[in-house]
Amino acid sequence: MSSFPVFSDKHTLEEGTTLAPRFDTSGLVTCVTTDAETGELLMVAHMNAEALQRSIATGEAWYWSRSRKELWHKGATSGQVQTILEMRVDCDQDAIWLKVKVAGDGGCCHTGRHSCFYRVKPLRDAAAEPLTLVAT
Amino acid sequence: MSSFPVFSDKHTLEEGTTLAPRFDTSGLVTCVTTDAETGELLMVAHMNAEALQRSIATGEAWYWSRSRKELWHKGATSGQVQTILEMRVDCDQDAIWLKVKVAGDGGCCHTGRHSCFYRVKPLRDAAAEPLTLVAT
Repeated sequence: MSSFPVFSDKHTLEEGTTLAPRFDTSGLVTCVTTDAETGELLMVAHMNAEALQRSIATGEAWYWSRSRKELWHKGATSGQVQTILEMRVDCDQDAIWLKVKVAGDGGCCHTGRHSCFYRVKPLRDAAAEPLTLVAT
Repeated sequence: MSSFPVFSDKHTLEEGTTLAPRFDTSGLVTCVTTDAETGELLMVAHMNAEALQRSIATGEAWYWSRSRKELWHKGATSGQVQTILEMRVDCDQDAIWLKVKVAGDGGCCHTGRHSCFYRVKPLRDAAAEPLTLVAT
């Protein structure tokens, strides 16, 4: 199904110059997407091999929607298309980082917010109650 | 095992002010860790309920090591302890964002680099060969 190579050798995986993503048992890698201009974390999603291939080929972010179980060209319906300015892969090649410029209204989250990470969890003594989130 | 509540109602999950992480079938949520000062993406890792509880209680990053199958106090052996300046959760509560200050030599990746994301994947026509990575 995937046209990407599979490396079992740790040194080749970590120090090599060949993209060999380690898809999990569901065929997915984690993708972290940040705003190329501000650096803000916009969303965390997943890619299967085809989504990754399409992202590389088109320079626009494609994901795999786990809830809808389908390829997802981000922004196809909302207009919030993500143009990838840079793609990176991590040491053990199970995570992708996209730095993107968002079209349309510039938003990302399906709730209407700019970023999916709109709530803060206070820590240590600042947490009056250990489960309380603070909206931002 | 987990002391966190489980919400099935989407509105409560997304708009509520209660932390109710959606652990996957392996009992994990994805954690994205960035440098609080520079905004750089340092690593992507995972937390089980105990790692998340310890991170909230101590203000230092604890993860679940999937390879070693054990709780992992980041920096315990390397000195690269991550003090959490801010913790956020995403809309559907299956991802955590930590903004950290790193102690010791300031590094993060086990390969010795500052960030785990030290290789770039060129896109579209810039990709002379579709699998080639560029070290940075």
